[in-house]
Amino acid sequence: MSEYINMDTLRFQLFEVHGLAGVLEHARFSEIDLESVDLLLDSVKDFSDAELYPCFREMDEQPAHYKDGGIVVHPQVKTFMQQSAELGLIGSGFDFEDGGLQLPEMVSQATSYIMEAANNNATGYVLLTSGAAGLIVSFGSQELKDTYVPKMLSGEWGGTMCLTEPQAGSSLSDIVTSATPKEDGSYRIKGHKIFISGGDHEYCDNFVHLVLARIDGAPAGTRGISLFAVPKHRITEGGGLHPNDVRTEADYQKMGQKGYCTTHLVFGEDEDCYGWLVGEPHKGLSYMFQMMNEARIAVGRGATSIACAAYHASLQYAKERPQGRKIQQSGQKDASQDQTLIINHPDVRRMLLLQKAIYEGSLSLVLQAAQYADMAHVSTGAEKDRYQHLLEILTPVAKTYPAEKGRTSVDNGLQVLGGYGFCNDFVLQQYYRDIRIYAIYEGTTGIQSLDLLGRKMQMKGGQALKWLMEEIQETLEQAMTHESLRPYAGQLGQRLKQAEHVLNHLMGVAKTGNFELFLSDATLFMEMMGTLLVSWQWLKMAAVAQEALLTGNGSQTQEAYRQTIHTMRFFFTYELPRVGGLVEILQNQEQLTLSEGLVEIA
Amino acid sequence: MSEYINMDTLRFQLFEVHGLAGVLEHARFSEIDLESVDLLLDSVKDFSDAELYPCFREMDEQPAHYKDGGIVVHPQVKTFMQQSAELGLIGSGFDFEDGGLQLPEMVSQATSYIMEAANNNATGYVLLTSGAAGLIVSFGSQELKDTYVPKMLSGEWGGTMCLTEPQAGSSLSDIVTSATPKEDGSYRIKGHKIFISGGDHEYCDNFVHLVLARIDGAPAGTRGISLFAVPKHRITEGGGLHPNDVRTEADYQKMGQKGYCTTHLVFGEDEDCYGWLVGEPHKGLSYMFQMMNEARIAVGRGATSIACAAYHASLQYAKERPQGRKIQQSGQKDASQDQTLIINHPDVRRMLLLQKAIYEGSLSLVLQAAQYADMAHVSTGAEKDRYQHLLEILTPVAKTYPAEKGRTSVDNGLQVLGGYGFCNDFVLQQYYRDIRIYAIYEGTTGIQSLDLLGRKMQMKGGQALKWLMEEIQETLEQAMTHESLRPYAGQLGQRLKQAEHVLNHLMGVAKTGNFELFLSDATLFMEMMGTLLVSWQWLKMAAVAQEALLTGNGSQTQEAYRQTIHTMRFFFTYELPRVGGLVEILQNQEQLTLSEGLVEIA
Repeated sequence: MSEYINMDTLRFQLFEVHGLAGVLEHARFSEIDLESVDLLLDSVKDFSDAELYPCFREMDEQPAHYKDGGIVVHPQVKTFMQQSAELGLIGSGFDFEDGGLQLPEMVSQATSYIMEAANNNATGYVLLTSGAAGLIVSFGSQELKDTYVPKMLSGEWGGTMCLTEPQAGSSLSDIVTSATPKEDGSYRIKGHKIFISGGDHEYCDNFVHLVLARIDGAPAGTRGISLFAVPKHRITEGGGLHPNDVRTEADYQKMGQKGYCTTHLVFGEDEDCYGWLVGEPHKGLSYMFQMMNEARIAVGRGATSIACAAYHASLQYAKERPQGRKIQQSGQKDASQDQTLIINHPDVRRMLLLQKAIYEGSLSLVLQAAQYADMAHVSTGAEKDRYQHLLEILTPVAKTYPAEKGRTSVDNGLQVLGGYGFCNDFVLQQYYRDIRIYAIYEGTTGIQSLDLLGRKMQMKGGQALKWLMEEIQETLEQAMTHESLRPYAGQLGQRLKQAEHVLNHLMGVAKTGNFELFLSDATLFMEMMGTLLVSWQWLKMAAVAQEALLTGNGSQTQEAYRQTIHTMRFFFTYELPRVGGLVEILQNQEQLTLSEGLVEIA
Repeated sequence: MSEYINMDTLRFQLFEVHGLAGVLEHARFSEIDLESVDLLLDSVKDFSDAELYPCFREMDEQPAHYKDGGIVVHPQVKTFMQQSAELGLIGSGFDFEDGGLQLPEMVSQATSYIMEAANNNATGYVLLTSGAAGLIVSFGSQELKDTYVPKMLSGEWGGTMCLTEPQAGSSLSDIVTSATPKEDGSYRIKGHKIFISGGDHEYCDNFVHLVLARIDGAPAGTRGISLFAVPKHRITEGGGLHPNDVRTEADYQKMGQKGYCTTHLVFGEDEDCYGWLVGEPHKGLSYMFQMMNEARIAVGRGATSIACAAYHASLQYAKERPQGRKIQQSGQKDASQDQTLIINHPDVRRMLLLQKAIYEGSLSLVLQAAQYADMAHVSTGAEKDRYQHLLEILTPVAKTYPAEKGRTSVDNGLQVLGGYGFCNDFVLQQYYRDIRIYAIYEGTTGIQSLDLLGRKMQMKGGQALKWLMEEIQETLEQAMTHESLRPYAGQLGQRLKQAEHVLNHLMGVAKTGNFELFLSDATLFMEMMGTLLVSWQWLKMAAVAQEALLTGNGSQTQEAYRQTIHTMRFFFTYELPRVGGLVEILQNQEQLTLSEGLVEIA
């Protein structure tokens, strides 16, 4: 079988770079030790090898589709839901009392990463169920929990999140799905929801949709949105299932991730759709944002997993494919020589190293966010506040960098194969198509960038950013203790100063009250920040690797540590300098993209 | 019907920026005037509207495929071949005596561009036939010309170029297809050719394959390759067609351009495949490179046409789709306001302007190359030499920039549509898939970059580069005459100096004899040069637009000229500064991608 992941790389990051052991020391995780995590990772890898990877291509070739009022998906989805549940992977981070394994977020990210690298078309069915159940656990009444969560964690029922409506798209304040109070305390739900991932199929007996809707008379905008649990079938008094007037209208046919259905659901067409309020009225969006924030990290992780799998596919090809010859000292090639493997061509090595630098850097960023989530979970008071803010400031970047640069990474993987990369005989073209959605899922890159520059940079009066800079400073100091890493720490420090200038410049614009101008290049600000934060992660990895090379105490091979340092150098040499151009662009005074007083675009 | 092209933009570039009138002044084109070109462009647009655009989506949804020993393609291919022939578009640049219209290359590029913007899945069938016929016209005997060319120009017979073999890929020196001399002066051809675009279908009675093969006993490497005309059916003495032992083995199924077949052909399996030598033995590669060089410009143009069509599709969406609200002076949005059209969001405008800047800049680069080709054709002596070299130095960039940045452009177009961009209901996803092959066609970006840095920069002892710099200098001086353009001319001048430093640095490496290191970052050198040369084109366009605004003499609207200047400013503000990062990267001393003495990649 082709390899789609390097488990050693994952373990290095989890255990050595991000110090899972330090997280496990906390009482919440007293039932778990490193050994059990190790065993779990192996089990998930075995499961992925056996059940997920083999049907990955097939799920693309036999897309999910609408038929007779329902959605036909690959039959392996059934096995996948069941076995994920048996492994405890649905709600793995939930408290024991809620039926979870009480695993750290870092470990849940790692297991999901393995599964997604094997088959990104399949994992969403489980992960969305997990996320929907999580919302009920966090904000729902005990009755809602008892009614829905056990069946979701057992994989018998699926879960979804229903935000988008045809007229609203990214603009959630324009949601019009209505919720009319009924005498029994439930609500009558009515409206259309589109782009609902995993919204229907025959392998779950029921679906629990977490639906954003507006209670009659609620205020306009996002302050009038409430959250409802709306099952496909409601539970009768006898415990049976009764259709709840949730009709599946269609399945969007897409360029990629074809095995993962994307449905259009119609609620309450016959005025018979019951929904149950989750938490308090009008607070739906803030609840949904818990799921959304987790989902954003998950999107970053998912994109990373595709870049990882694509890297390994192109690496394998490069190691097997002979073509061309190396150039001689004479400047000529010797046609009488045997052809060389393409991995020996510098341009191919560059493309491979770029992929490796992007996907491993992305993974590290995602695990960093997960570590903050875990630390926020187990700590209290000021410490909790600090970790919570670190997580929040990192979230839009951990979503966006892997989605944007992951695309570059996969694109380079395809290019390594030349014409074959474009052909269906090889898997690269599927990764190329699949990954494209990640820059759109859960808020486009534009939306994430507005969040980063417009909200996160000033969060808590700029304190969140200060905390983040402290974290980076710590890595810089650690790297400075190694002579060989000092130049790289110096480079990153210098770039961070440039970024500070940029931010000051932009804040100056914000102070003039021209917020549209202030935010107009937010996407480029995101590009700059993403590269800087991944540089930070690479320096962190290199410092750990260098330390391990010196002490001989690490669990990886010496060669693996040298590779890590080599890839850090690659990132700093080939990616970090691009920040210079962005710094310049972000300080432009041209106002070319504002609509007022400017020429039309035609 | 959706619009896929802006004819005014094309006319502006053709007539005003690149001065077609100046080309038409030469005796070769005495039968053509601007008015007749104008009429031709309109005819081709009408033809494209009627016959090409309507079946574009369908050709994707019903891919070309192998069946019963042949390839099934969309039936519209028949109409397309016939009507293209009727319009004189097959071999439109050929001399009158060879059955052509003796049109300038600039005009042929423009007509192909219109057709490709309408349907990039269809045009290859005609254009390859044209290229193959061109090879026979240039290098074949009168007998070969008489036998094949008329039927090709009438669209009854198709033509292909057969280079790639399974074991050789980009490495043409490893071609093993054999040609054994026969007593009648023909050759017995035997071998496999793969990735043969337009290689077989039922809508041509015959195909003339231009095949690279090795005559028995020929020297190893590229110096032993000859060119043969190998028909699918050979012509009997009675003038009929007799099968020539060319078997269609398969059709590659691909991620994009699904309507354009990509075949695997087997020649001489039954020892009964006749080929006829084109030109002299062992000179095949140099002949093929005539077609290849033209094909490279054509690839750049094709990628540009897709970026153009994608731009117009996303522009239309942005002008029709309401979503979200503009941010107020308060920093808040007012949910009670109506939603605004997304074209009013700065991030969307940025994505649209980026697309426009890339595709129009690409088009200008392609037309610049075509203009050099025309001037080389009509001039003599030193002048011819100069234009020929200008064409050659521009060719790898005119192929690569549109292919690479065109992908970025289409990617931004897809992003404008958000989730809908990923769905089959909208065309963006098709453009996204279709354009991916252009960075691979006719020599990958890596190959083009080696050509640019390793050959073209030093061509004629560096004289070609000097000529190119003179051309750019002329534009800088022209721009300097306009106060408002002076800053931009200054910026480009400064960046060109930086690029000169880079080249000097790299030439220093070459002088040490470490050619592998010298060329290791050629792809990044290409990225830098592409941005610089497109900046040059934008400045050229802006200078023409500024002049027209001043004099009122141009044929476009004032608004159109202002848009041109605005888009130039966008390119200089958002793209040109990225050169700074590349300049730094290209001067790195790290040697991270050479294989000797380095860590493995795993």
